[in-house]
Amino acid sequence: MTRIPLVIDTDPGIDDALAILLALASPEVDLRLVTTVHGNVDLALTTENALRVLQLAGRSDVPVAVGARASLIHPQPERAGHVHGAEGLGGVQLPPSPARLDPRPAVVALAELLAGSPEPVTVAAIGPLTNIALLLAVYPEAAARIDRLVVMGGSAARGGNVTAAAEFNIWSDPEAAAAVFGSTVPTVMVGLDVTLPTVLSEEGIARFAAAGPVGATAAAILQQYLDHARDAYGVPGVVVHDALALTEAIAPGTLGTVRRDVVVDTTLGAGRGQTLVDRRSVSPSPTAVEVAETVDSEAAVEFLVSRLSRLDGQVLPG
Amino acid sequence: MTRIPLVIDTDPGIDDALAILLALASPEVDLRLVTTVHGNVDLALTTENALRVLQLAGRSDVPVAVGARASLIHPQPERAGHVHGAEGLGGVQLPPSPARLDPRPAVVALAELLAGSPEPVTVAAIGPLTNIALLLAVYPEAAARIDRLVVMGGSAARGGNVTAAAEFNIWSDPEAAAAVFGSTVPTVMVGLDVTLPTVLSEEGIARFAAAGPVGATAAAILQQYLDHARDAYGVPGVVVHDALALTEAIAPGTLGTVRRDVVVDTTLGAGRGQTLVDRRSVSPSPTAVEVAETVDSEAAVEFLVSRLSRLDGQVLPG
Amino acid sequence: MTRIPLVIDTDPGIDDALAILLALASPEVDLRLVTTVHGNVDLALTTENALRVLQLAGRSDVPVAVGARASLIHPQPERAGHVHGAEGLGGVQLPPSPARLDPRPAVVALAELLAGSPEPVTVAAIGPLTNIALLLAVYPEAAARIDRLVVMGGSAARGGNVTAAAEFNIWSDPEAAAAVFGSTVPTVMVGLDVTLPTVLSEEGIARFAAAGPVGATAAAILQQYLDHARDAYGVPGVVVHDALALTEAIAPGTLGTVRRDVVVDTTLGAGRGQTLVDRRSVSPSPTAVEVAETVDSEAAVEFLVSRLSRLDGQVLPG
Amino acid sequence: MTRIPLVIDTDPGIDDALAILLALASPEVDLRLVTTVHGNVDLALTTENALRVLQLAGRSDVPVAVGARASLIHPQPERAGHVHGAEGLGGVQLPPSPARLDPRPAVVALAELLAGSPEPVTVAAIGPLTNIALLLAVYPEAAARIDRLVVMGGSAARGGNVTAAAEFNIWSDPEAAAAVFGSTVPTVMVGLDVTLPTVLSEEGIARFAAAGPVGATAAAILQQYLDHARDAYGVPGVVVHDALALTEAIAPGTLGTVRRDVVVDTTLGAGRGQTLVDRRSVSPSPTAVEVAETVDSEAAVEFLVSRLSRLDGQVLPG
Ligand SMILES: [Ca+2]
Ligand SMILES: [Ca+2]
Ligand SMILES: [Ca+2]
Ligand SMILES: [Ca+2]
Repeated sequence: MTRIPLVIDTDPGIDDALAILLALASPEVDLRLVTTVHGNVDLALTTENALRVLQLAGRSDVPVAVGARASLIHPQPERAGHVHGAEGLGGVQLPPSPARLDPRPAVVALAELLAGSPEPVTVAAIGPLTNIALLLAVYPEAAARIDRLVVMGGSAARGGNVTAAAEFNIWSDPEAAAAVFGSTVPTVMVGLDVTLPTVLSEEGIARFAAAGPVGATAAAILQQYLDHARDAYGVPGVVVHDALALTEAIAPGTLGTVRRDVVVDTTLGAGRGQTLVDRRSVSPSPTAVEVAETVDSEAAVEFLVSRLSRLDGQVLPG
Repeated sequence: MTRIPLVIDTDPGIDDALAILLALASPEVDLRLVTTVHGNVDLALTTENALRVLQLAGRSDVPVAVGARASLIHPQPERAGHVHGAEGLGGVQLPPSPARLDPRPAVVALAELLAGSPEPVTVAAIGPLTNIALLLAVYPEAAARIDRLVVMGGSAARGGNVTAAAEFNIWSDPEAAAAVFGSTVPTVMVGLDVTLPTVLSEEGIARFAAAGPVGATAAAILQQYLDHARDAYGVPGVVVHDALALTEAIAPGTLGTVRRDVVVDTTLGAGRGQTLVDRRSVSPSPTAVEVAETVDSEAAVEFLVSRLSRLDGQVLPG
Repeated sequence: MTRIPLVIDTDPGIDDALAILLALASPEVDLRLVTTVHGNVDLALTTENALRVLQLAGRSDVPVAVGARASLIHPQPERAGHVHGAEGLGGVQLPPSPARLDPRPAVVALAELLAGSPEPVTVAAIGPLTNIALLLAVYPEAAARIDRLVVMGGSAARGGNVTAAAEFNIWSDPEAAAAVFGSTVPTVMVGLDVTLPTVLSEEGIARFAAAGPVGATAAAILQQYLDHARDAYGVPGVVVHDALALTEAIAPGTLGTVRRDVVVDTTLGAGRGQTLVDRRSVSPSPTAVEVAETVDSEAAVEFLVSRLSRLDGQVLPG
Repeated sequence: MTRIPLVIDTDPGIDDALAILLALASPEVDLRLVTTVHGNVDLALTTENALRVLQLAGRSDVPVAVGARASLIHPQPERAGHVHGAEGLGGVQLPPSPARLDPRPAVVALAELLAGSPEPVTVAAIGPLTNIALLLAVYPEAAARIDRLVVMGGSAARGGNVTAAAEFNIWSDPEAAAAVFGSTVPTVMVGLDVTLPTVLSEEGIARFAAAGPVGATAAAILQQYLDHARDAYGVPGVVVHDALALTEAIAPGTLGTVRRDVVVDTTLGAGRGQTLVDRRSVSPSPTAVEVAETVDSEAAVEFLVSRLSRLDGQVLPG
């Protein structure tokens, strides 16, 4: 089987941690690079967390390159430490990694990987889109070699989470998102429309928690998020936004998408950071985005749970 | 039975015409005043159309006062003559009315009616909100006497119609809408969330068309709209937005509403004219808006059809 | 001599008080109406101050009509009590007026005066432009009868005072200013370009202070402003912005104006409230504004000082 | 004498060509790198023009690295081919250069030069600020090694040239300019305040035209610009904006600067691209900009003319 070369651009973050573990548990993809970005917490923490999550799964060989420390133009108004814990992993202290950081800036590492890969590369962007926008600007030819860009971010019909209108990742750097969604890179938008209904229940968590030490640690990381999700969204389980985007990256077609024109609100008004998805028609434009509008949530959750269990050597059906 | 004193602020417009006829056919309300506003077509035409629709139903005694000819701040980018016909009533030429216009500006006529009415007054605003915003600014005490302001406009979860994000009435004067939705006037927002699923079928139209000359004329006015709706929205029937707002004004509780914070996008960006409805929670704010989120569309259509038939003396069940 | 009928739209305010007194001291104009508006302080205070200033000069016969209590769309971020004193007249307590307010809203009173005046009327607008914008919207025909609208507000080349970009009056209601400057009403913009260099010295103040009780009171009102101007602008005297606009209203041609296209920044960005004056060319547009760009400051100050002295019966040369 | 290492980031462009020649004629600086950017004309043309201008002066050894082909977020509304000629050098066809382009993107070449230079490096940015903003984002540590960033762009008190409010370079990429002016890089803003009064007369042009073939070619390039300046600004000569920025880069202190807070208007309103310079006070902020407010225009022009003459081996006084 040919494995899909994969890069994860991430700001761990609890659901980022799950997403990385999901990728490592999935034989369909070959995680070649992790690039870090500011977002849920500061860049130094997201970078450290990325290293430690890889180490948790015994994969400190995956290179980690450090990306943008701030949004492109206007500072992100606030981090999400209240959701992810002050250090970003729900209060869980993972052991440090022996690995050293890639000496190249994330954008350079990513561009060189894209330029050098004989196979088409999938990029899963599960934090603010700052790095990806920079890649498009500095290395337009390399960016053109992205096979699929799977973005966790935005909302078509669900409204926002961080504000009434905006989803956190897009709101964190609307200008970057505008540049990315306005480009011709083949992009899938995995937004709140599909993530909010996809709830990982406590029972599901218990299953991979029982699989072994990695699963148990993943479950521990989720605990604070579980508490927050119950309070903030009233859902009896956790919405692991980023992991659903990874599922689509690993198993293309998991989500039902429609090709739409998407404009990101870059004004300074109340709509800032909103993804304005034109749902009135299917778009023929080369800059249109594949917007995920439907999901088999039960199947997606089962995929996640069974895969995470594999990290401890258990193979569940699914 | 005490009848609810009613004012309709309108820009006829095909569905405005239906809405006015619906009010005249409904014994629950006493139509005391019609105020006109620019919108679907120019003010001179909306005013002439208002006069003629009243005359069609034999009610040229209802006073008509002329309102704003333009949006408050920024000009409305375009009219909707392509939807409503160049003269606003779908190409149908109604006979002129013998009535003379109220000599007062709409805002003054409305303020004096509000100040002088012993009973609480309902205002149905089914065009751009320019007149209502002016009323709030010039006569804040009179505005405080509005019992219910039922607005046809906006969208919570459906996206827009005139743009990807904005509904036509709000987009026509976003600054006015911002002032109105930001006020403490008790306001019901009847937006695309409830109007789009409420489709008046050709069969329903045929029923009131058969009731007599008024019904037949109403059906003729709808014909062009029927064609447009089929082409633009792909719906097998017509969406008579304004008539649904009138239904709620006539029969409070027709629509299921939730109290929400609503901000109107007054930026010059792609979201201009959008109603940003915070669906994350119910709002306790005194400026919150009752957003119509649910509708029994079948019942609403039946109400409209049976009422319109009454204008020709027929009483249908419903 | 035919006297010019004059209306002052005002938010007293220290320099508004001077401006009103200047008008009363000037035989060229006939002050027919004072309309009040929110601005430097709350509407209740600006209205009370207008009544008392008229009474100070023995002219409680001039009608006062109450205008807008708030900006058209977005609330004014802050008042200017730190400049004008908490009650708006520099801490001076004037005796109350026996006069009663005009029962009509300012906009109605102004419209009726305009409609009924056989001679062309000058309107001096020396506060936020809320009332004037409402007049244009509700009574467009009456507004067309304004002979000259002399506005204190804005800045072409001097930058702002309340922000880096915006002058206080325009910033207090940018949307209203956009509507007014975008209209075809013949408008003179008396902005910081001409007011800042026109400094009333302590010596000048001493002259009218010595003229009698009215002059002495005017001087007392100025004292706090004098202190503020010294601190905020570093000028050895007071800049009586509004009085210069009145001088132009009383003696047309006092200021050198150039016909310019002016756009008011109504965005929510850092430029909000700025008057974007296109200085690249003279404008032939019917909506162009006569922007005051040059002033004989010495003559303007002498005019003010000598006129104010007349209120106490003294006729100085000038 | 220690020469100042210099990088020119440029979009030639007529005045860019003059600026490059001025740098090459000046022994105080050592031109180490030219980076190109979209702007006056498309990137392919600005790059080709940069190569050819270097070759004109016999300096095809200076490396040229290709930068951004488009603005960071929103496309530049229009190029300036009407000013600079369709190909950017006033219709003059320079001979091609034998040099090959630096294989690195401009941002990488610039970052590596900065990181590797033992001496502090001056960067003269005389086009849209896209490359510089990308450098700050991708290589923040390298950017911190810029000794002086001398920007041609913006306007404090002069209004705009491309719009009523905005100067061309800033307007071409306002978001990039916002990022740069908001950073702590020591920045000098050489805007219209100092460039517009600094007019290179036909007589001055004639002097270096007579110096030899390079001067004659420079004069030929200026001819179309001379025509445009006469028409557009009514000035009897050419305003060589970029060359004045280079003069300040070569001879620090040429311009009188004041430390100001500068915000770039990134809204979509009429002020877009304006540099909002807070002229009310001197700023102590680490992100403040040294805004050039005064210039000895005669001396600056003499400096330019005499230096350009040196390229043909002539040493004039000055
Ligand atoms: Ca994330
Ligand atoms: Ca309507
Ligand atoms: Ca005032
Ligand atoms: Ca240039």
